[in-house]
Amino acid sequence: MTLNTDKLLAFAKRIASHAGTIMVEAREKKGFSADYKADHELVTSTDLAIDHYLCQELIAAYPDHRILSEESSPNLSLDAVPTWVIDPIDGTVNFAHHHRHVAVSIGLYVDGQRLLGVVYAPFLDECYWAIKGQGAYLNGERLWVVDGVSLRNALVATGFPYQKNALEKLIKRVSNVLHQCQDVRRNGSAALDLCWVAAGRLQAYYESVKPWDMAAGALIAVEAGAVLGRYDEVESAWPLEINGDSLLVCAPSLYDAMQQVLAVD
Amino acid sequence: MTLNTDKLLAFAKRIASHAGTIMVEAREKKGFSADYKADHELVTSTDLAIDHYLCQELIAAYPDHRILSEESSPNLSLDAVPTWVIDPIDGTVNFAHHHRHVAVSIGLYVDGQRLLGVVYAPFLDECYWAIKGQGAYLNGERLWVVDGVSLRNALVATGFPYQKNALEKLIKRVSNVLHQCQDVRRNGSAALDLCWVAAGRLQAYYESVKPWDMAAGALIAVEAGAVLGRYDEVESAWPLEINGDSLLVCAPSLYDAMQQVLAVD
Repeated sequence: MTLNTDKLLAFAKRIASHAGTIMVEAREKKGFSADYKADHELVTSTDLAIDHYLCQELIAAYPDHRILSEESSPNLSLDAVPTWVIDPIDGTVNFAHHHRHVAVSIGLYVDGQRLLGVVYAPFLDECYWAIKGQGAYLNGERLWVVDGVSLRNALVATGFPYQKNALEKLIKRVSNVLHQCQDVRRNGSAALDLCWVAAGRLQAYYESVKPWDMAAGALIAVEAGAVLGRYDEVESAWPLEINGDSLLVCAPSLYDAMQQVLAVD
Repeated sequence: MTLNTDKLLAFAKRIASHAGTIMVEAREKKGFSADYKADHELVTSTDLAIDHYLCQELIAAYPDHRILSEESSPNLSLDAVPTWVIDPIDGTVNFAHHHRHVAVSIGLYVDGQRLLGVVYAPFLDECYWAIKGQGAYLNGERLWVVDGVSLRNALVATGFPYQKNALEKLIKRVSNVLHQCQDVRRNGSAALDLCWVAAGRLQAYYESVKPWDMAAGALIAVEAGAVLGRYDEVESAWPLEINGDSLLVCAPSLYDAMQQVLAVD
């Protein structure tokens, strides 16, 4: 299938931008309600409104494509059909607490491969994007990971699950990072953590996340020169290209050292 | 001693604003060098340039006052003489990594008591301030802590020391917070974490910090309705009003619960 990637990118940036406007307006008007899913994951009415908007636009523009969405179709998988993998608000807890570290994430997969990713943070006015093989960008500026930093001076981000069981290994890993690296950051948005590795603001990011959290950011990080691997078993059934289990994304020279830091019994 | 607090506040806001301009320009020009202190704490040439600027302004405007500064006079203590407690860049690691979560912090103590605090985050254009008994503000808007949130839904920030010894208790506390609260944030600036409690973006903040990290932010949080206490022993010799040992600052209804969360052997 031949796809016009420039046109697809322009489309994804346009709908990401409008999704950002919905977020900003909802917060200014304090016009959102918050609720909890079964696993105590927060969801607001704005997550749902943006999901609705994105799905409408995608269906209208690309009726033959599929949509894998955190909020409306979380059980779809990838196949040969172009599939949009979207998270209307990555960082919902931050959104509800009036932090700026919040983004909409839109990735496109074709033949099961990452083709395009857009992550837009409206409260910071930062739009990250990448097309496979064409590099990663922030507001038009080419991004490169910052490599060559020692483990002791590396700034490492991670995240924590909503569910509170099986935290022991996770605590051990944080302990190892605190002992061996410069510091930990826990900013609250996986999509932006991935983009921050791309931008050289972090040297490494690790976490187990869902496909919609990493679909766009993983391409942006890799296109900026980051290495993407796993620090532990991949347990969920998602195809590897959108599987966020035990995700480790970092500057190339830190990859082996970070594997050792994150190896726990 | 009778002091004109309005005039003092206007002065502190003016020099904080210019300090912010120095930060922004240094980053835009990539015009700063980074070095490590003896305890592996990062310091940049911009920390030193802003410290020099603030001290010059303070000495010129208030030659009878004293200055307790992270960078130039970290051993001074409080007495009856008005004392400015300043941190040229709170969040130096963030500054060096091109994050926006960075602030200049300026507190004024008179007769050993907090009188005034200004925390300015130039990359976010957020100026927080408070005068004792007159409330806390962000860019002119009155701030109030968000109280009445359950422990399970509370967002809690903390920080980690540069030195890597004695991390065990700290890891246990993070584990307790992860098990019992909504999530942890580690944003990288103690001054801004305190202001974020004031702004209702966090429900609690705990950490052991230095006087200059908390001098201004503690007043801003308390003036917004937060409770300030201790989750463990106060070991350093600083007067309590500027002593950052085992600092717990949170929404009033969470104080007892947070004490239990942070109590570890």
